[in-house]
Amino acid sequence: MKNPQVLVIMGSDSDLPVMEETSKILKQFGVTFEMRVSSAHRSPQRTAELAAGAAKREVKVIIAAAGMAAHLAGVIAAETTLPVIGVPIGGGPLNGVDALYAMVQMPGGIPVATMAIGKAGAKNAGILAVQMLALANPGLAEQLSAYKSQLSEEVAEKDAALQVKLTAGISS
Amino acid sequence: MKNPQVLVIMGSDSDLPVMEETSKILKQFGVTFEMRVSSAHRSPQRTAELAAGAAKREVKVIIAAAGMAAHLAGVIAAETTLPVIGVPIGGGPLNGVDALYAMVQMPGGIPVATMAIGKAGAKNAGILAVQMLALANPGLAEQLSAYKSQLSEEVAEKDAALQVKLTAGISS
Amino acid sequence: MKNPQVLVIMGSDSDLPVMEETSKILKQFGVTFEMRVSSAHRSPQRTAELAAGAAKREVKVIIAAAGMAAHLAGVIAAETTLPVIGVPIGGGPLNGVDALYAMVQMPGGIPVATMAIGKAGAKNAGILAVQMLALANPGLAEQLSAYKSQLSEEVAEKDAALQVKLTAGISS
Amino acid sequence: MKNPQVLVIMGSDSDLPVMEETSKILKQFGVTFEMRVSSAHRSPQRTAELAAGAAKREVKVIIAAAGMAAHLAGVIAAETTLPVIGVPIGGGPLNGVDALYAMVQMPGGIPVATMAIGKAGAKNAGILAVQMLALANPGLAEQLSAYKSQLSEEVAEKDAALQVKLTAGISS
Amino acid sequence: MKNPQVLVIMGSDSDLPVMEETSKILKQFGVTFEMRVSSAHRSPQRTAELAAGAAKREVKVIIAAAGMAAHLAGVIAAETTLPVIGVPIGGGPLNGVDALYAMVQMPGGIPVATMAIGKAGAKNAGILAVQMLALANPGLAEQLSAYKSQLSEEVAEKDAALQVKLTAGISS
Amino acid sequence: MKNPQVLVIMGSDSDLPVMEETSKILKQFGVTFEMRVSSAHRSPQRTAELAAGAAKREVKVIIAAAGMAAHLAGVIAAETTLPVIGVPIGGGPLNGVDALYAMVQMPGGIPVATMAIGKAGAKNAGILAVQMLALANPGLAEQLSAYKSQLSEEVAEKDAALQVKLTAGISS
Amino acid sequence: MKNPQVLVIMGSDSDLPVMEETSKILKQFGVTFEMRVSSAHRSPQRTAELAAGAAKREVKVIIAAAGMAAHLAGVIAAETTLPVIGVPIGGGPLNGVDALYAMVQMPGGIPVATMAIGKAGAKNAGILAVQMLALANPGLAEQLSAYKSQLSEEVAEKDAALQVKLTAGISS
Amino acid sequence: MKNPQVLVIMGSDSDLPVMEETSKILKQFGVTFEMRVSSAHRSPQRTAELAAGAAKREVKVIIAAAGMAAHLAGVIAAETTLPVIGVPIGGGPLNGVDALYAMVQMPGGIPVATMAIGKAGAKNAGILAVQMLALANPGLAEQLSAYKSQLSEEVAEKDAALQVKLTAGISS
Repeated sequence: MKNPQVLVIMGSDSDLPVMEETSKILKQFGVTFEMRVSSAHRSPQRTAELAAGAAKREVKVIIAAAGMAAHLAGVIAAETTLPVIGVPIGGGPLNGVDALYAMVQMPGGIPVATMAIGKAGAKNAGILAVQMLALANPGLAEQLSAYKSQLSEEVAEKDAALQVKLTAGISS
Repeated sequence: MKNPQVLVIMGSDSDLPVMEETSKILKQFGVTFEMRVSSAHRSPQRTAELAAGAAKREVKVIIAAAGMAAHLAGVIAAETTLPVIGVPIGGGPLNGVDALYAMVQMPGGIPVATMAIGKAGAKNAGILAVQMLALANPGLAEQLSAYKSQLSEEVAEKDAALQVKLTAGISS
Repeated sequence: MKNPQVLVIMGSDSDLPVMEETSKILKQFGVTFEMRVSSAHRSPQRTAELAAGAAKREVKVIIAAAGMAAHLAGVIAAETTLPVIGVPIGGGPLNGVDALYAMVQMPGGIPVATMAIGKAGAKNAGILAVQMLALANPGLAEQLSAYKSQLSEEVAEKDAALQVKLTAGISS
Repeated sequence: MKNPQVLVIMGSDSDLPVMEETSKILKQFGVTFEMRVSSAHRSPQRTAELAAGAAKREVKVIIAAAGMAAHLAGVIAAETTLPVIGVPIGGGPLNGVDALYAMVQMPGGIPVATMAIGKAGAKNAGILAVQMLALANPGLAEQLSAYKSQLSEEVAEKDAALQVKLTAGISS
Repeated sequence: MKNPQVLVIMGSDSDLPVMEETSKILKQFGVTFEMRVSSAHRSPQRTAELAAGAAKREVKVIIAAAGMAAHLAGVIAAETTLPVIGVPIGGGPLNGVDALYAMVQMPGGIPVATMAIGKAGAKNAGILAVQMLALANPGLAEQLSAYKSQLSEEVAEKDAALQVKLTAGISS
Repeated sequence: MKNPQVLVIMGSDSDLPVMEETSKILKQFGVTFEMRVSSAHRSPQRTAELAAGAAKREVKVIIAAAGMAAHLAGVIAAETTLPVIGVPIGGGPLNGVDALYAMVQMPGGIPVATMAIGKAGAKNAGILAVQMLALANPGLAEQLSAYKSQLSEEVAEKDAALQVKLTAGISS
Repeated sequence: MKNPQVLVIMGSDSDLPVMEETSKILKQFGVTFEMRVSSAHRSPQRTAELAAGAAKREVKVIIAAAGMAAHLAGVIAAETTLPVIGVPIGGGPLNGVDALYAMVQMPGGIPVATMAIGKAGAKNAGILAVQMLALANPGLAEQLSAYKSQLSEEVAEKDAALQVKLTAGISS
Repeated sequence: MKNPQVLVIMGSDSDLPVMEETSKILKQFGVTFEMRVSSAHRSPQRTAELAAGAAKREVKVIIAAAGMAAHLAGVIAAETTLPVIGVPIGGGPLNGVDALYAMVQMPGGIPVATMAIGKAGAKNAGILAVQMLALANPGLAEQLSAYKSQLSEEVAEKDAALQVKLTAGISS
């Protein structure tokens, strides 16, 4: 894709099942995106070029996902002035605490907007990217308001369903 | 201030020495901002109103700082579709790990862009806000490029100073 | 239910299998309760209204259960002067440590009576609610004494069963 | 004191500077209390007697504070059906995480209402005790509402002071 | 059993599969023991009596196993001057770190000899008990030396088996 | 000293201020001891010889103190069948959690009786050693009972002092 | 094998499935190695002899793998001046954090080159050993460059495969 | 320096007081080295060039020191096939655990030889570098043996001094 609004980079193709939470959100909001595999450690030049070239391709936001000593988001943030959103991937012996600390504890000067570990974080990375794009896109802002109302309605529906269930005396 | 671009909310006025790292950056980039004290727990209505009313005042980005069970950023994110940046404040018995977990582990649907614990995070919150604003402001984008070059030059200068120091045999 | 003595709020209907430990205890003690789904982040107004309106409905105690960045109990405590009991829900990448820290580390002024992570905590939330109600209800106090004796007898029975098992040389 | 409403027990007299946050709150609300030193480990009989005898003395709530392997609150809860509030004391090598885990992770059957580590937790222990007493005391309930309003007003005052400070260009 | 040398107390009968590692060792060394279920929280009097009466029954060593907020070993140590060995039981949301901290961080005056979490710790509790008994029992000391030699020989055998396996080119 | 009952080994002479808590207890109970500096890493042969030769010198108990990757107690336990008590030393970047894990998590076969981090653990190491020696020394057992009574009396005295202080209205 | 370049020692034969990641790398680079089982705790003399004798057998690098209170690497490093690489083995209640801390936190004077917990660390131990050998072996250095290029190409291939998959609309 | 054997890179000049432990060791062993400031995030090109160009300058070993989200060692390892030693710098809110995890948890393919947090790690980084160089330098190997003997002698001297002190009855 020539001019994606969002560039999603993951450190390994094994991160795809998590990062599909991001792509679902971006598709739902009609945001164009490119999804790439590139590693901070195994393909540093490719990663640096992807990051450094993003602004020229009119990419607006970069999302980076990685596990363990997750340097990917920081390495990308070092090469661009675009906002970079980081998704720590769990699943290893430290359950993603290593990836979380390696992403969120960036030194002053180079921020990474860090999300929760795993699928919740991947979904929120998509929403945060849409929120950033919405700053210059009133249509997206309206979609976000609708999305927020829908979240609230879903809670109300689940609450109503629980009342029915409890009244009927059905155990979970 | 009527139309600040960035709204900075801290849970306690004791967070000010940390959050001045944010205001320094915003001033340096010429970004207008409003700095407020409002607590998720002690003044929930005020906080909800500040958050819910921000978009109407043409605020573009909200930065929230809090310590301990740091609910402020999440509570604000629940009331707005603007991007919300969270700064975990350290200093208590758990050194800010409590605030970090309470900010970054947001469930799917309501993102908080979480920064490092303390001053580094406060500085980066300012830079990330500028990065978001720069998506629709080419002047800011240029300033960010210059800032990035300056960071790199400062490293070069510090390296040069170290070489002088080492050659002269001066210990730290 | 119009006048429940205890209001149980969970952040997601997926918390129900854990929170049935609470409802079992409340039923066992004959305490009336209402069980609701309401999210601090996805349905903040609904949550604030439930919390703020509880005292008028003569609710005496609120129990709140949530996982990850578990703000629900704190957000409820911010809107009421009733005692609020928090149950951290585990199961995510951080096994509930995030929820525990986000509940228990409340700043001075707004307490949340925090229980253990998961089912043990859910059960104890029910018992603690009964203990609070028993302060003005001698019948409940007697039931609690009987419950305590029963706990002790169950230990004695399990010990006796173990002696039989060990004497018979049966391995676990 | 013959009939204190609240019994405050600390494991060591070195906990007093923390627990004075509790006594300040109880005095402020006009709640009678007794403050005792008794250790789960060094004076187990004394502790068991204090706990077991509290209900007969018409004590309504027990607050227990301890550090390290903080068994005091659990040991007290084992001997009474009154609600027991736990305050983990920090300051040792593990900064109170040991005391927090040793208090909050109570097994099903014997709850301890656990507060934050240190002074914030000690203050909240006092407030939670008042909230419990207020269930049968409308005057205390009104005081709590006034206290809550005051907390909110103090935030507003601190916010106003910050605005003055920022306008005047005074750094922290 | 009237005069067991070792008294093994577990907080719940669900701890039996772990604590059979202890009983296997004690049987292997021909040490007499009694295995009991007694809870620090649900049956405090029974636990205190078991602990306080042990010395009179000529018990020499007490082993206590418990999970979560594991007070059992500390509560027993408070009631006796016999050496008390603690086995933290894992398996809950915090994987036994809660039980470890609640056992090992005993305040000055009341030691608990803490073992590793789970089965390794249960086995070592048995060996440590034998080491203590061996101080006054040269036969046991000789058995311990033989056990130690056997451990070393087993390593040598496993190493030899590995060499065979590697030479044969067999993967694990 | 030719025939000390207890051999205290510390990994570094910087551990002495902590380990004087151990020697105070041993002196108080009239137990003979030898205090040595020997490192698992810097002087492995010396350490192995001290450990392996202890039983022949009629040493009954070994106490080992070390910080960071605290291998000393485990290395000693590998060379002797005497009971080995470990004291994790804090003070480094990980506050002694590294030393605690490196001592307590011994694999099955080679126990280390682990104490709390720092001075409380050092004091308890002395008491536990006395408890072990008391198994074959009725005089020591009586001293331990007296010590336990004294601990309880000190609590009573501190409680009495607190009552005087509180009555007099003196703040801490 | 008489003169292996690398000596791989694991504390238990149960570590073999992890350590085969090391042997695969060493075979791939044509480096000779010997793989042994030897425990720091159960066979200390054997371990000390293996370590102390390695240099005489012209071993260049030692790799040590162990779990829990993982003393093996440190004990080996104490007996040799060869570089020692440590692989913490996970899988127990603390998921390998205990083994990581027990390996990496070596005191000044005796380094252990610590790798990641588990299979990633085992693979990297092999690569690091090759990197050390390559310092005096230009052929190995060329192989390492080729390996690095291959890693980068594999990322490119996985990225290309992802593009095909995404274009075809195939979900993971 | 044109042809240093060791290249020491630190992420900030504030790391110098820690990294002087490294340079002291390298000087003591007569190893030539170059000490540079270069950041993974603020000067990524400079860092990549330093790393990628090191082998051509006949550098043999690279040592990298950084704090917080310490990406420096990993970023360097991505650009070279030379062995890279990492020193996690402590001092921030997470005391260096963030830096440790961000260094040691490297994914398979790109090792970083990780040392202890802070000064002990910095010293050991120097020794490990010497151990690597000694593989092709018998003179250095002899120096290392002498250094090891000296460490052992220093322990013996400290032990002797302790015996004098204890005999004289001098407290620490």
